[in-house]
Formats: sequence, structure tokens, C-alpha cells
Amino acid sequence: MPALMNYNKEKPWVIEQKGFEQQYLGKTESVMALGNGYLGTRSSEEESYIGEKRDTFVAGTFNNFDENEVTELPNVPDMWALEILINGELFSLSQGSVTNYSKQLNLKNGLLTRSFIWTFKDIQLQFKFLRFVSMARKHLMASQLTLNNLTQKTINIQIKSGINGQVSNEGSQHFTDGEKGLMNGKFIQMMPRTTHSNIQFIQTVHHLLSKSATERPETERRAFFMNYNFILNSEEIISFEKRASIYTSIDNDLKDKSLTALRQTAVAELQNIDKKDFDELLAESTNTWQKIWDKHPITIQSKNFKDQLAIRFAKYHLHAMVPAHDEHMNIGAKGLSGEGYKGHAFWDTEIFMLPYFNFTHPDIAKNLVTYRYLGLDGAHKKAISNGYRGAQYPWEAAKPADGEVTPIWGAADIVTGQATKIWSGFIEQHITSDVAFGIKQYIDVTGDDDFEEEKGDEILLDTAQFWASRLEYNSKQNYYEIDNVIGPDEYKEHVNNNSYTNYTAHWNMTYAIQLIEHLKKNKSPIYKKLNKKFNLVKLKEELEEKSTKIFLPQPTKAGIIPQDDSYLNKKLLDLTKYKEKDGVDSLFHDYNLEQVNQMQITKQADVLLLMLLFEGLFDKELKLKNFDYYEPKTTHDSSLSLSTHAILSADLGKLDKSYDFFNKAINIDMGEYMKSSDAGIHAASLGGIWQMIVMGFGGVRMIDSKLRIEPHLPKDWQHLDYGFDYHGESIHAEVEPDKLTLIKADDGQSITFLHNGKEYTLQNTVTITL
Amino acid sequence: MPALMNYNKEKPWVIEQKGFEQQYLGKTESVMALGNGYLGTRSSEEESYIGEKRDTFVAGTFNNFDENEVTELPNVPDMWALEILINGELFSLSQGSVTNYSKQLNLKNGLLTRSFIWTFKDIQLQFKFLRFVSMARKHLMASQLTLNNLTQKTINIQIKSGINGQVSNEGSQHFTDGEKGLMNGKFIQMMPRTTHSNIQFIQTVHHLLSKSATERPETERRAFFMNYNFILNSEEIISFEKRASIYTSIDNDLKDKSLTALRQTAVAELQNIDKKDFDELLAESTNTWQKIWDKHPITIQSKNFKDQLAIRFAKYHLHAMVPAHDEHMNIGAKGLSGEGYKGHAFWDTEIFMLPYFNFTHPDIAKNLVTYRYLGLDGAHKKAISNGYRGAQYPWEAAKPADGEVTPIWGAADIVTGQATKIWSGFIEQHITSDVAFGIKQYIDVTGDDDFEEEKGDEILLDTAQFWASRLEYNSKQNYYEIDNVIGPDEYKEHVNNNSYTNYTAHWNMTYAIQLIEHLKKNKSPIYKKLNKKFNLVKLKEELEEKSTKIFLPQPTKAGIIPQDDSYLNKKLLDLTKYKEKDGVDSLFHDYNLEQVNQMQITKQADVLLLMLLFEGLFDKELKLKNFDYYEPKTTHDSSLSLSTHAILSADLGKLDKSYDFFNKAINIDMGEYMKSSDAGIHAASLGGIWQMIVMGFGGVRMIDSKLRIEPHLPKDWQHLDYGFDYHGESIHAEVEPDKLTLIKADDGQSITFLHNGKEYTLQNTVTITL
Repeated sequence: MPALMNYNKEKPWVIEQKGFEQQYLGKTESVMALGNGYLGTRSSEEESYIGEKRDTFVAGTFNNFDENEVTELPNVPDMWALEILINGELFSLSQGSVTNYSKQLNLKNGLLTRSFIWTFKDIQLQFKFLRFVSMARKHLMASQLTLNNLTQKTINIQIKSGINGQVSNEGSQHFTDGEKGLMNGKFIQMMPRTTHSNIQFIQTVHHLLSKSATERPETERRAFFMNYNFILNSEEIISFEKRASIYTSIDNDLKDKSLTALRQTAVAELQNIDKKDFDELLAESTNTWQKIWDKHPITIQSKNFKDQLAIRFAKYHLHAMVPAHDEHMNIGAKGLSGEGYKGHAFWDTEIFMLPYFNFTHPDIAKNLVTYRYLGLDGAHKKAISNGYRGAQYPWEAAKPADGEVTPIWGAADIVTGQATKIWSGFIEQHITSDVAFGIKQYIDVTGDDDFEEEKGDEILLDTAQFWASRLEYNSKQNYYEIDNVIGPDEYKEHVNNNSYTNYTAHWNMTYAIQLIEHLKKNKSPIYKKLNKKFNLVKLKEELEEKSTKIFLPQPTKAGIIPQDDSYLNKKLLDLTKYKEKDGVDSLFHDYNLEQVNQMQITKQADVLLLMLLFEGLFDKELKLKNFDYYEPKTTHDSSLSLSTHAILSADLGKLDKSYDFFNKAINIDMGEYMKSSDAGIHAASLGGIWQMIVMGFGGVRMIDSKLRIEPHLPKDWQHLDYGFDYHGESIHAEVEPDKLTLIKADDGQSITFLHNGKEYTLQNTVTITL
Repeated sequence: MPALMNYNKEKPWVIEQKGFEQQYLGKTESVMALGNGYLGTRSSEEESYIGEKRDTFVAGTFNNFDENEVTELPNVPDMWALEILINGELFSLSQGSVTNYSKQLNLKNGLLTRSFIWTFKDIQLQFKFLRFVSMARKHLMASQLTLNNLTQKTINIQIKSGINGQVSNEGSQHFTDGEKGLMNGKFIQMMPRTTHSNIQFIQTVHHLLSKSATERPETERRAFFMNYNFILNSEEIISFEKRASIYTSIDNDLKDKSLTALRQTAVAELQNIDKKDFDELLAESTNTWQKIWDKHPITIQSKNFKDQLAIRFAKYHLHAMVPAHDEHMNIGAKGLSGEGYKGHAFWDTEIFMLPYFNFTHPDIAKNLVTYRYLGLDGAHKKAISNGYRGAQYPWEAAKPADGEVTPIWGAADIVTGQATKIWSGFIEQHITSDVAFGIKQYIDVTGDDDFEEEKGDEILLDTAQFWASRLEYNSKQNYYEIDNVIGPDEYKEHVNNNSYTNYTAHWNMTYAIQLIEHLKKNKSPIYKKLNKKFNLVKLKEELEEKSTKIFLPQPTKAGIIPQDDSYLNKKLLDLTKYKEKDGVDSLFHDYNLEQVNQMQITKQADVLLLMLLFEGLFDKELKLKNFDYYEPKTTHDSSLSLSTHAILSADLGKLDKSYDFFNKAINIDMGEYMKSSDAGIHAASLGGIWQMIVMGFGGVRMIDSKLRIEPHLPKDWQHLDYGFDYHGESIHAEVEPDKLTLIKADDGQSITFLHNGKEYTLQNTVTITL
């Protein structure tokens, strides 16, 4: 049975796998992952297979196994697995024959369905598994197995189901083996607790079987199961339902977090929904999802139906993973869909995902930027430990106050046998300007003055202070520089004056100067408050001195902004033959990382990302030259690269190229390569899908605090509808190849925006010929 | 493929499984477990299956996951698994068809062999896996895969092999993720360390492939693998060899235990054997095993060839599991073959296994009794914590100084949802007399005066002191009693005056009185030394007062010794219908444990064990009455029960019954019931097999410090040859139905022994007509 992904224009909300192959379990586990922002879970099959990765995470519940490991999201005891014995033999798709196999995720409501007919010896059974994580009840998950006996004989069925805490994070166990019990005679309950962060979990399961069966409870170490045994008559159909909930002692929707209260709350919820059937519970969740879809729907009329599917895929996952309920949490690089990157948040949030939330869910965006405000303590801690001042944001972030949580040691070097040092946590410093940039974008897009005054301005000053302390004076050149960093291109470690880093640091500092002037002049109470923290006169002086003297790499004669001091002197290599293949494995068959580091090869957008984010600093001709120079040298060996290139090439009028990048970008997770999502979906790339459509082809941008709308559709697109929030107003855009129509309810404030350099005012409707 | 065990008289050293069934993985994992006393490992298949339990243990390396869990033997990162891809597809017996399947363990040298022909699509391959743990080099394990392409096409083979630390003890991870590396370009090395006991492990793997292949190292979290990729031509045969070693920082054969030294030692050993091929390494191990077999071989001429196989099975496992190298370690109830009972030692050692070592390997027996001497501190700790004096031995023991390590809380009660308390660690107190009894037996059998004077006497006084402090005075009856205990029959908790407990405590105390008198009279320096510790005058007075007044339950009018104060008043139940079936599951379908506790139902030999160990206290008629009373009430729901009944019934002349028990006893692990050994082999029952043959049918017994030899063969046996050591002399016995011949080299001291009440002296040969 080939296991490739299947997309069908007749099912415009569905991603599907038509066959099953045990080697590719990770693909649908990740791309069909379920979640509601509070919890997320991989869509492993109910029956177990070697190679599966069962993961369930609750956002923000970080723990570290020991002092040698960094904190990570712990894999919660599994509540999905069913051990099914058919006439005494373990059910598995590796036995017998399987027809009509389909596993699908309905993106519209997060319903996972898996159905097939299984024939083994003289047995034929029709299986249908349903599963969802409720968007309406954040603690609730539910599954339903429907079983139909297609044979003329009775079949003995045994189902073992419960809670299994023998899972771990690749061998690292984060939980104590807590109390277990059967509450009120029917609710299985387990109380694991994280070993160091001491977060109490309460997991409760309730089974509902449509026919009577003998029941036998079974406790194991770290596990509690019920065993059901019954006879399935010929042509009989039964359903086996499982309702499962998770509560934790850090849940912010609970008042009393004592263990007793948590246990009672958990039992009470399952008791409350006792009379609701599976469809009713699903309908509640579907309704809540519908509210998300109703907010700024995107419609693409394209020759390729997958374009429309891709934005649904992206938005589904963005909402399945974003902890909209709690500002103490952020989005992991794999969301809640896998152990990759340990649930840590990176610059991926600010540069790749935050724009989606800024423009469509400012309430969620506010949580994400507030998370960085709560992270100031951790950022101060990091700055101090590195000998700097101000707020140096962690490259990887977990709980806000933790500061830096990037692992220090990576895999062993094959030759020397020694562990290799991971430098990102020390010298991938652009994260601090990325956070500042994200804060500024949030303020500009939402116009959230309260946040700006209470939190945002402080972050922007604190990060500027970091940069001021970070700069090194080069007395020979009489300028300030930034040595020994990693820029966005992570192939190049320990470089000096990475352009992206220097330019964004410069922006952060100069913006802080303006901000101080503005506050002094217009917002005296804020100025006074912040002055106590920063001594603004002194800070301004320092920023003025340093920002004017910072080295900003200038174009060469050929018009190329050097990625860093050494890049342009490195050897050249023609990547054409490697870029024709999927991924970059083939390059690394010929060269090792050390050799790649010695060549003009770039992992991902670096100078080009700078030109995209700060477009006003560079003219179009310069951008074209740099695009033509750097793109052929870029492997796109990071899921963050393609969307940047797609948007920039659209800006530069290279629409075919842009659409090529778009297609590659949407296939990062949705594509045919069955192994790339094993560790989880690529969260930033999902934000990138929205950006390519709305900011790239739709042309919406926030540049220098001004809204700009300059759409340019790829030639396969006839129409694009999208919407966004701006300063509290809801704007709907309709784009055709030659026309842009903007519509806004006329009872709000008017909005000004730029289009091709001209300022427009939108009160009700504006139509622009393209 | 049925997976039942297969025994064949043509293969008198082999236990075999002819088929493979994924549901019964645990059976051969346990009964074919490999070991050399330093390390032990379950014989899981190379390819992985759902339901497998990969376990490797190094004796004595206890660790506890957290303060809520008791210490246990940690499951060491796995070194056996091979992930094999055949033309890109994962090899598994659940795919394709399998013929000629045989998995067998050669008991003579511990060589595990698994071979079969596998047909899948257009592929046909002959597999042969070999594996052993070296008895000659305690740190070394080796495996060899031979692969033969039976098709006319080439086949692409990929093998992934290395060290995988993502295993755990049912979810509890005992190791840090230590350093990993590839040493000298070819030795994979991983350095996990236990989380609390801080034992450093060094695991090293070296691969040898008979043809050249592309090689790719791969590191994962807690794991390091090499990937081999090659083409197997038609009819080509290749071999893939894996040599693996484990060293730890508590190894007593190493001088310098720094990490660097350990790493170098490990690499040096594998380097040293680089030129030896698999067969040579196996031959070394076979030779060392042969020395074990040459010591007192047992030959049984029986109508049933399995009788002979059973003693080989028993001795194989006893030597695979006994830590002959280190007196700081003991034998776990499952040896080194499974996670059951966490590697803890129980009374199983003294009462069931020690006799084998006393009589055949006194050097190993010395280690086992020395372990109890080293355990005095722990025993004092336990006594003090319970408000007693002297040495109260732990019901479950791990590291000697740990004291009690029995878990306090067990599985949740299904009805109340509350965890149930495990009482054995508090009130199953007969372990202290069992240890004293074992020490005395060791001294009597070996005549090891040094041990007696330096250690044994002290233990015997210290345990007597415990009992003196333990007794409770009953003023109504004017006697001392022992309330609130669990006797050997663990169905009955919180009973008063369990006969086994009271009689053995009485023996311990009265022996101590004799000992004090003897030392005072004959061994003044020892008396003085011990007097400093115990104040022997006062202790003797106390023991005399209490031992004369201890309540020793006397026979009822019907001649029944009450198991405890309440047993004979409980309800009766006819167990006949339950005893006809295997196991006791059927009883527990009708009654719960609470109900069973209220009836005259006994789990295992209790009064009868007392009568076996202290036969002089009871006349034959009384024994017969009690046998006839208690045996029908005994479920034998403990692997410790059957051998006791077999020996006692042989003593009582019930030879057919005895042979019945013998047959049931040898089938505890070797039998057809495929689930009973899942958690590991039954170590005590293996000692029981030797006891049934040599002490039961062979009639060798140490009673009241006197050797007694009274054989009585079951009617299916024509001849029994065995041997034993006694006071440094090596004695060979040949038993025929009507004749006993004893042979001893005539250059040693003469030996006296009893036979049917008559004393014989053996200088060279004695023949007795039976």
C-alpha cells in the first residue's frame, strides 16, 4: 500500500493518506496532528507500530530531565492507543490484507478519520476510527471506534484502553509515577507530576461501549487500563467511545489548583457531558472552529486547488498550536506536533508567525508579544551572563523567566568522538532585534497604545540598550562592529558584521532614540516611568554615539551587500545540480559542513530577509542584484527560507519565480517527501504560507509604521479574497489581476494606506486599478 | 506459526521454540535469557516488535527513579537490536512468510541461535542469528547475523546497529544521556550514568561486516548507530558481527575507575580481540561453561528425557544469574532476566538457591552469605526504624547497606481508587530466620570456620537478638508470641503466631544460646570480640527467658499444626476443580483476595516448609497428617511451593506424588504456558529443581549439623548420578533404585553421614543397599 499524501479538489478541506506504510508513520502523525492551543497531540494510529511516535503535549508545561538536559515539553501519558485482539490475535495492519484504506484530517473542524476493511484468515471487519481534540472544551479529547463484522460468523473482540505513562521523550521520562484510580467506578484517573517543574497533571478517561461486555481493570506501572471483551455478531456494528481530559496545576482557567479540586473538576466535566453523544461534542468543537474560519476567510481562485487547501492547512495548524489562552506561553518551532526543538520558541514566532496573528487575531498576537515582556527577566539574565546590559533575548525560549534554553552540546563529532558545541544560544544574537521588530510590528498593525505604553516601549528600549552594550569598538576603523555571531544563515558560524545583525541592531537603536524623544515630548508619565529604569538621557547619548558609528556593510561595486566580512571572499560552487533534487542531502554527500562553511553557500534567506523586512533601506535595483546573487547560492535548507524568497521575488516582479517558491513552500509539510515532518510540522513555514498569500500576493505590508497594499497575483490565480484587522478596523480585500477592492464597515475610523507611493483613505470602499 | 516450546531428546542440551508468535515474545526472552552473573540480558529478537521487552542488566547497579520509587536494576541501553531494511522495507516476521523457524538456546554454552527462511514479495533470504554473553570475558557480548540470498536477484540490504538508550524500566529512566562518540573511527561508545546512584556505565560496540559497505554514523538522543548499506548478490552469504561490552564504575575487577580509564579499557578489550573470530570468542566462553558443567555433573536415567534437560536448564540459569564475582550483590527473584521484582533478593536465595551453591559451588555460596554480613547495617537500620533491636533483614534487598527496599504502595484498588499498601516489607518477618538458617546451613555444609568466626556467628547472634526484641509478652497466657505478621502463605496478612515464623524464631534464639555457650567454652577470642558487640551474658539471659516461653503452636487433636491462630477457624473450600487447571486464575474468577483470605486456602508451603526444614521437630505420622491436611488447601500460586512439596512427599514415601510435583515444578518456566515467564524466569524454582533432584530424590540433607543421605528414586528413574562438596571434600553419588554408591577421592579427610539413622564413614567408597 503506497502511503503518499492525497489531495482532491472534491474535498477542499481534507488532507488524506490513501495507503498505509509502517515506514512513514511520522508523516501523518505530524501533518494530521490535532490540537487546540492548550494541548496538542500527534495522530498516531490507535494500534501500535514499531517506529511510531506517540506524543501529547500541554502547552507551557516545561520540565528538564536532569541538569544536563534543557527544559522541554514533556510527552504526556498516552490516552489514544487501543490494543485490539480479534479472536485472540493482536490486530495490526501488518497482518492480513487491507482495502479502502483512508486516513484523513478535516481541516475545518479537526476531525481525524481512519477507515478500512481488514481481512485476516476467515475474519472481515470494517473499522472506522474518529478522533478530535475539542476546540470548545480545551481539556477534552474524544475518539470513537465503529466496528462492523462483515463475516457470517461471530467474532470475539477484546479492547484494552486507558492511560499509558510508559511513554517518554526519546527515553527521557519527565513524570513521576503518580496515583491512579478508578473514580466513581468508571473514570480512570492518573496523576503524574513533572519531576522538576512540579506541574501536577490530572488525566481522566471514560469509556462508552454500545453493547455490554465483560470489563476488567488492569493496573501496570505508570498505566491503568480497562479490558473489554465481547462477541461481535455477524453484521453487527458497535461503537467504542473514549473521552479523555487533561488538567494541570498551571491551568489559568482553574481557580483552585489543589490536587483534590483538580481531580473533582476533571471527573465533573466528564460526568457533565455523559449525556452528550460523540456527534454533539464534535458539533461544539466544529462551531468553535467555525468562528476561526469566519474571521478573515481567504479565498483563492487558482488553477491549482491545492493553493486554497494550503492556506486552510496553515491556518488549521496555527490555531491548533497557538496557546491563545495564556500569555505565559509561546509557539514551539514544531508547535505541539512533535518533540523537535523541544517545544521551544525561536525568532520563528516574531518573523514568521506573528504577522498572521497581528493582522487577523490581534488578541492572540497580544499574548505572544506579552510573552516577550514577561521574558524580560530571562533576557536580562542572559545579557548579564554574557557580560552585556539590557535585554538579550534567548535564542530558544521556554518558560518566560527561564532565559536561554538552547542546548549547549549537540551530537558527537564522528571523527573525534567529542560532542560538538551548539553556538546558537551564545552567538545567534539577531533574535533580540527580531523580538524588537515583532513588538514594533504588533504596535504598528494593531495600534494597541496600552500595550505600547505599558510593555512595548520598555522592550524596545531594553533591547536597544543590549545592542549598545554589545557593540565592539574597532579603533582602526573608528566604527562599532559586531564580531563573532551567527546570522540567519546558520552555515556560517563565528562571522563578523553579519549584515542582517548589524542593520537590525542599528534599526533597534535608532528607533529607541526616536522613541525617547517622542516620549519626552508627548508622553511625560511614560517617559518618567521608563527613565527610572533606564536613565534615558544617558541611554540616548550612548545610542546616538553608537548608532551613528555602527558599521553597516555597504554594497560592493557590483552592488552586493556582503552577508558578512568574509562571505564574499569564500569559494564559489555551482549548486544547480543539487537544487534540482529535493532537500540538500545530495550536497552533503559531496561536502561536509566544514567544507560548506568555506564556500559562498547560504542555508536560508539572510541578506534577502533584511531587504524584505527593511525594504526602504535598499532600492529595487540593489535588491534585484542581491536576489540574483544570493538566491542561486541558497540551499533553502531551512523551512524559513522559501516564503521570504517568494514574497521578495513577488515584490521584485518575478511572479513566476515567486509562485515556484510558493509551491515549494506549501510542500514543506504537505509534499510527497514522507520523512521531513517526522519531528513535527514546520510552524514558521505555516506562518510563511499566510505571509506569501496576504503579504506577498495580497501585498499587505507594514513598513515604517505605514500600511501598504500592493497586490500582484501569480498568473495561475484569477482572484484572491482576504481580510485583516488594522487599528481595530476589519478590512476585506478582493484582488483580481487588474483590480483591488478594499471594503470596510463605514461606522469605524477611516484608514490610510499607501499604494505605489500614493496615500489612500479607506472609509467604506476603495477600488484601485492595478 | 504456533510458538510452543519444543524439547527433543536428540538435542539433550537445547531448549527450542519452533514457531514465532508476536503475542508470546516474553516467553523466550526470559527462558532463553543470557548471562554470566556480571550481566544478564533478555533474548529479544534482533528486529523489533510491539510487546517486546528488551532488557539488559548489570548486577548490583541499583538506582531509584525518584523518591517515590524503590531502587531497581536499571535497564541498560540496548545493544542487540538490528534494524534491517530489505530493498528499502523494514524486515519483520509479521510481513511475508517464514519457514524452518527455530529459536534455540544451547544450555551447554549459552549460545542463542535463531534461524529461518523468509519470503517476501520476490525476495527469499535465509537468516541465521547467533548470540552469546561470554562466560570467559564478563564484560563481553557478541552476535552474528548470517544472511544468504536464496533468490536469483541482487538484494539491497541496510543494517542499522549500535547502542540505543531510549529504553527504560517500564517508562522509568535511570540514566543520564551521557557522552557518545566513535572511538578510533570504529568503536561506538556511550557513557550513560545512573541518575541517583551515580554509577558510570561505558558501553562500546564494534561491528565487523564480511563485505564492504557504505557506512554512515547516526547519532540520536540517547543513541548512536552505524548504518551499513550493501548489495547482496544472488546466493551470496555475508556475516555481520557485533561485539559489545559494558563496564561500570563499580566493577571490582578494575583498578582505576576514572571515566577516561574505563573508556580506554573498554576500547582496548575490543581491540585486543580484533583478530579473534566469532567462533574463537564463543569457544572461550564454551570452555568456561564446561568447567561449570564438569563440577558435579548430574545424570538422570529417566523414562522422560525432559528430567535431564530440566536440571541443565536450572543450572544454566543459576550460573547465568549469580554474581559470582562480587559479594556486594545477590540474586534477584528473576535473576537478570526481567524487570520483575526489580532485581531484589528475597528469602528465595537462602531457602531455595543457596543449597545448590553450598553443596556444589561453596566459593559462590560464600559470596552470597557474605552479602548478608555486609547487609547487617541495613538490617540494623530496619530493626531500629521498626522499634526493635538486632538485625532485622529486609524482605527485599538491593545494595547491602540499603536495608528494606520493598515498595510501600502497590496497584490501586479498583473499587476505591486508592493505592493498596504492600505489607511484606513491614511484617513478612520470617526473612530474618531464613537468613540465619541459610548462614547455618552454609557453615554446616562447607565447614568454613573462617567465615563462621569472622561473620557467621555474628549474624546468628544479631538475628537472635532481633527475635528477642520482637517477641510480645502475652500476660494472659504467660507466653511470648509474635503478632501481626505475614508467614510464607502470603494470602494471609496480619496473622498472629504463624507457626513457620514462631518455630524458626525459636530455633534462631535457641541456636544462639548454644553458640554463646560454645564460644565461651571453646573460642575465647571470638567470644570476647562478639561480647563487645552484644553483651553476651545479658543476651543469653534474655534469649533463655524468651525462648523457653515462646508460644510454639502445637498439634490439634487431629494432629494438625495450625498455620496461625486463626487459620483453622476459617471456612473450607474444595479446591479440586481449580487445581485441575493451570495456575489459579480460575479461583480468582470466583473469589476475590479478600474472600480467599477468609478461607483455609494457602498460597504456598507454609507449615509443610517448616516440617521440611526442621524435620527433627516432627514425627513422620504428624507430617503425613499435615501434608494430607494442607496440600489440598494449597494453590501453589507461588513458584516456591512445588519443590517443597516434591521433596517432602518424597521423604514421606509418596514418590508418585513427588514426581507429579517435580513435573509441575520443572514446567514453571519450561512449560507450555506462554505468559508466566514474561517478567523473568523464576530463580527460586530453578534452585528448587536442583533441590528436588539432589536433596529430594538424591536424599542429601543437612539436618542438625549432620549430613544425611537417603535417596529414593521415582519409579520412572533407573539411575541418578550426582555430586556435591562437603567440608572441602568432593563426593560423587550413584543412585539406583536399590543401591547407593558414594565415592570420594581417598586422599582427603573421611566423611561421616547418616543413612536411615545409621552413621557411615566414607573414606573412599561406600555402597548401601536401599
